[in-house]
Amino acid sequence: MICLPADDEVSGCSVGIGDDCAVLEISPQHELVVCTDTLVEGVHFPQETLPEAIGHKALAVNLSDLAAMGAQPTFFLLALTLPADDPVWLESFSQGMARLARQAHIQLAGGDTSCGPLSITITALGTVEKGQALLRTGASPGDLVVVSGTPGAASWALQSMQNGVQPEPSDKAALEYPEPRLRLGRSLLGWATSCIDLSDGLAADLGHILDQSGVGAEIELNHLPCPQSLAKQSDELRWHLQMAGGDDYELCFTVPAGAASQLAEISSSCGLALTTIGTIVQQPGLVLKTQEGKVFELTSSGYQHFADLENLS
Amino acid sequence: MICLPADDEVSGCSVGIGDDCAVLEISPQHELVVCTDTLVEGVHFPQETLPEAIGHKALAVNLSDLAAMGAQPTFFLLALTLPADDPVWLESFSQGMARLARQAHIQLAGGDTSCGPLSITITALGTVEKGQALLRTGASPGDLVVVSGTPGAASWALQSMQNGVQPEPSDKAALEYPEPRLRLGRSLLGWATSCIDLSDGLAADLGHILDQSGVGAEIELNHLPCPQSLAKQSDELRWHLQMAGGDDYELCFTVPAGAASQLAEISSSCGLALTTIGTIVQQPGLVLKTQEGKVFELTSSGYQHFADLENLS
Repeated sequence: MICLPADDEVSGCSVGIGDDCAVLEISPQHELVVCTDTLVEGVHFPQETLPEAIGHKALAVNLSDLAAMGAQPTFFLLALTLPADDPVWLESFSQGMARLARQAHIQLAGGDTSCGPLSITITALGTVEKGQALLRTGASPGDLVVVSGTPGAASWALQSMQNGVQPEPSDKAALEYPEPRLRLGRSLLGWATSCIDLSDGLAADLGHILDQSGVGAEIELNHLPCPQSLAKQSDELRWHLQMAGGDDYELCFTVPAGAASQLAEISSSCGLALTTIGTIVQQPGLVLKTQEGKVFELTSSGYQHFADLENLS
Repeated sequence: MICLPADDEVSGCSVGIGDDCAVLEISPQHELVVCTDTLVEGVHFPQETLPEAIGHKALAVNLSDLAAMGAQPTFFLLALTLPADDPVWLESFSQGMARLARQAHIQLAGGDTSCGPLSITITALGTVEKGQALLRTGASPGDLVVVSGTPGAASWALQSMQNGVQPEPSDKAALEYPEPRLRLGRSLLGWATSCIDLSDGLAADLGHILDQSGVGAEIELNHLPCPQSLAKQSDELRWHLQMAGGDDYELCFTVPAGAASQLAEISSSCGLALTTIGTIVQQPGLVLKTQEGKVFELTSSGYQHFADLENLS
């Protein structure tokens, strides 16, 4: 993350750099939640990706950040850099983006187009009830660690494609058309103690919650809900993709212990699997345990999206 | 501009696509003004540009959009795509951006970094008193057309550099370190009838005011305030650069006739030349007149920044 030296604290900004979104005071009742995310061709998606999927995903990754804050989407701005004027590409790209925008009740308010290597930056705005935004800082020892959906599907699809194997349609859809968990995020307000969306892999993203809350976590690997196709693979591969793979855009959050009934209700109303995968502990660090109680070590904890990235952030 | 089909009107968005910024309702007293602009290496600036100047300009072009709406800057988000992790480059880039951010009282609230071809997208947020934002739609026949500073300096510097000639320091500064006219924008609230910032050239940008206000304009070319270095060149070259050059980031605005004394006051308080260059007329179209009353035809009315752009917007 770029750090600009500031003369003083960021006033009027109740949550700044380091969470999924910035939270800005706008009225006595509400705060504005703002985030920005870029997709670069060849880095965040392979060159052969359909423009419709690119349009969907560019918006989805930003909506996922809003979801992780418990925000209600309102508007977005689109900064689109294209190598050439290609109306067919643009039509398909717009359709993919517009379909998701309608579903999420968010509207395009403005933007900018430039000529250059294909890249899409979206800035999404949303609102949240004052002081209610889901942050990364509130996890306490004893809290349950919960994850939505089946992490690992997207990175399993990507790995299959890179190996020349056609992935399962549901895994490919998870990679190309992630569904931002907006309804779940709203359902967690006033109840979950922390939340993050999974873009860089469960281990890395949960790690942000742990660091920023000053706690640790113990995860039961056999509790991880697994995509069917991946369940047939070795435990090693499965755990690696589920913990260190990325592009999941599921939510990982913590709730007070004894909240199982509330979880079941929300799971049912959102039509989305919510699985308790572990517990927050006092001792800092992330411990991954196998069914036999052995500690499993990840060989890498961060996800490199499509291409290798230098560590710029 | 990308158009996403919408089921209904953009509600809560009082000004949408087609002005410098989107204007969103946030409280009974204020509106939120939001804009996004991308700079791409090799398109918006030559490869040899100093990172400090890139950092400055990436923020400046967005602040210029806020200025054109009469907004008070509050926060910005930075989406930075870099080809490699280069701490020296990043330090200089950040310094250039931070200096302008301090001057403009705007603070970095968040962002995103990616690996890829160098490109910078900034989203700037500001506020304006409700219903007061300066738009492109209010110019009326009889209004005066006014421009700040000396348009043409930036494009003259760029042309010189492309011809291997060292530009005057003041012209190079205009190209690399444009000063967003925020104070002027604020001074025009409740008084100017329309406003735009000059990024694509005076003819093209004033053209947006004319189109969106449903009027025309007559410009007296000999009234155009000219950079000293450019005044020595032929009228043809001078007028071409001043009307069709770009990257000026000055404001062009219209005010009711008979406002000369108010213009002089604001010019003095902003420390900035404000020059009346023509008049709004009923007949649509832009007419450029020489001192002898002849009509001057521009060979091209739009600016291509650094590199050739396809018409994507």
